[in-house]
Amino acid sequence: MTKKDGGTLVIIGGAEDKTGECEILREFFSLAGGRKSRLNVLSTASEDPEAGDQYRRIFLDMGAEEVRVLAVQNRKEANQAQFFRFFDDNSGIFFTGGDQLRITGILGGSILGTALHRAYVTGAIVAGTSAGASAMSETMLVGGLDDATPKKEIIRMAPGLGLLNGVVVDQHFAQRGRIGRLLAAVAHNPYILGVGIDEDTAIVVRESGSFKVIGSGAVTVIDGKQVSHSNVSESDSDQSLALTDVCLHLLARDYGFHLKERYVMMPGTKEENK
Amino acid sequence: MTKKDGGTLVIIGGAEDKTGECEILREFFSLAGGRKSRLNVLSTASEDPEAGDQYRRIFLDMGAEEVRVLAVQNRKEANQAQFFRFFDDNSGIFFTGGDQLRITGILGGSILGTALHRAYVTGAIVAGTSAGASAMSETMLVGGLDDATPKKEIIRMAPGLGLLNGVVVDQHFAQRGRIGRLLAAVAHNPYILGVGIDEDTAIVVRESGSFKVIGSGAVTVIDGKQVSHSNVSESDSDQSLALTDVCLHLLARDYGFHLKERYVMMPGTKEENK
Repeated sequence: MTKKDGGTLVIIGGAEDKTGECEILREFFSLAGGRKSRLNVLSTASEDPEAGDQYRRIFLDMGAEEVRVLAVQNRKEANQAQFFRFFDDNSGIFFTGGDQLRITGILGGSILGTALHRAYVTGAIVAGTSAGASAMSETMLVGGLDDATPKKEIIRMAPGLGLLNGVVVDQHFAQRGRIGRLLAAVAHNPYILGVGIDEDTAIVVRESGSFKVIGSGAVTVIDGKQVSHSNVSESDSDQSLALTDVCLHLLARDYGFHLKERYVMMPGTKEENK
Repeated sequence: MTKKDGGTLVIIGGAEDKTGECEILREFFSLAGGRKSRLNVLSTASEDPEAGDQYRRIFLDMGAEEVRVLAVQNRKEANQAQFFRFFDDNSGIFFTGGDQLRITGILGGSILGTALHRAYVTGAIVAGTSAGASAMSETMLVGGLDDATPKKEIIRMAPGLGLLNGVVVDQHFAQRGRIGRLLAAVAHNPYILGVGIDEDTAIVVRESGSFKVIGSGAVTVIDGKQVSHSNVSESDSDQSLALTDVCLHLLARDYGFHLKERYVMMPGTKEENK
């Protein structure tokens, strides 16, 4: 239930404000060093090679020193030797939306993927929105039905980038009616903490293993550690899941949560981080 | 958190099977006396005067002794003196879907509404689907945003028929992404138990104050009695709600719940009812 070694994650529920105050993108920019930041936008999740360009423009407008866009489209590209130290001079790496399976299918185990992990471990801020948010955790939701009764086969899970342990992240959470698929994920292993992030909302996860909510929506935390009964193993694929004594926290801006100890941090609580 | 005096309620999340096994409608038919049942279908929720006809045909096909349809469309009609003992010989009363505000706006305090309460108190089975389900409780959800971040102004509540106390019912629950509005309702007064019923799913509420789930989907119970923190009073209308330590139960077919004592009843648990 902890972050692996490394810096700070900014995990965004998709559809973040890009034209107004840009609270979330500005927070990432600021954490990555503000005007001294050297950023890389990774649009591997998207088949559109220009998917990263809007973020590049936004971060340059904010005053970033350097913003590169990397639109790696396949494993051959991801395995180029030149990528070995590609992120070493980056203070922030931003994953766009698209399909999380493209992120892991293309980067997983590649030279570029290894470079990403090293950059993260040595302190680069890693952010991801939508598919880029889902890919952060060790086990990720690849897909699932929206607005659906929780059944065990409404979701598909797969190994993610592994930057966050013990957590399954879902995005566009309220807007696409995804409580059912997050409950289904937690039912598979109640040890896992489910974190559902609304659109234009993000969690900033710190080294200590706690996060704070920013943005306009809510973050729903599904904690299964007190689950007293589940029918997940014996239920048929077309049967509804049963899951009792799930603890749910609805968190708004400035609320926080300690992932390891599993408690809510009220607004104004002193960060335990450096 | 108890039922008022009276018989049994069948509260249906909408879109119940009408062409296959008809599990839910058959359960209502059976509870109301099967082939000896004398039923009344109330389509007041709908502006379509023929909204009750399909239910009439279904219950007649099942073998009901008598099925009447009453499509009262306004208060003048509802206040006809002939309605004073209208339901006295009915063993079951079925509310169709439509708009729950039509049910309470037209029946509330009328002669027909009074007759309904007397029939219920003297043992008639009362069922309602969709809008007819929402109208059952003392305070009902009149409307609200689907697939939305919980904020206090995304919902509207009003006094319902008052057949069930201490509970707010929502319907089409998973299918329309309504966890946000049910959490918002519970945030207003965590004493209230939120009960979200999926489509083709129902709860059968017994005199003892416990219910059992029937049908193909799930029932989500939101129990706020352990809520440790809420921002409902100080949050602005456009702010997301925060609500911590909500207890959530996901219940499938044959699971039950005791409304008064607030505990889950496993499948096979002996009914405490007659």
